[in-house]
Amino acid sequence: MYIAMNRFRVARGREEDFASLWRLRERYLSGVAGFRTFLLLRGEPQADHTLFVSHSEWDSASAFRAWTDSDAFRRAHADARTPPGTLLGHPQFEGYEVLLRK
Amino acid sequence: MYIAMNRFRVARGREEDFASLWRLRERYLSGVAGFRTFLLLRGEPQADHTLFVSHSEWDSASAFRAWTDSDAFRRAHADARTPPGTLLGHPQFEGYEVLLRK
Repeated sequence: MYIAMNRFRVARGREEDFASLWRLRERYLSGVAGFRTFLLLRGEPQADHTLFVSHSEWDSASAFRAWTDSDAFRRAHADARTPPGTLLGHPQFEGYEVLLRK
Repeated sequence: MYIAMNRFRVARGREEDFASLWRLRERYLSGVAGFRTFLLLRGEPQADHTLFVSHSEWDSASAFRAWTDSDAFRRAHADARTPPGTLLGHPQFEGYEVLLRK
């Protein structure tokens, strides 16, 4: 199993706007081959930002990569652009293999 | 729902030793009140380390905190000490609320 995470530093006061974008975006994952679960995570507020993490579980790294290369992926991201001033810097991608699961 | 993660920078060549420690440690979570799921994640190898993440899902932040205050938690960590030279720096804790789940 493979987990894809993106880490977003969201400006203070923009947290609700950011979460709303994901309520739209996650709908596009329905029925994508190899997709299992999506979570949107919100960390503790910091001085100038709140860390959000988009967390998606996939059958394999190759299933995830096929999705990022698909038209459905481009549509999802075109429909849910992040307004200027929402993020501090670019999101940081992290991909993981699941070694243990309990 | 609440997710507790610890991020570990594991020295190159020590990845298998580190994963083995967790095969012991995760057993202690069975039956802990409010515990749902545990994952051990391994990221892409970097120049001097590989990032591992321990990821546990809980009913709530308070269920997680009750576990960290328990005797069972202390036993789990006493039995699975990390040998010197395994980690680059201290693990970094991150706690998250789950805003969306699909």
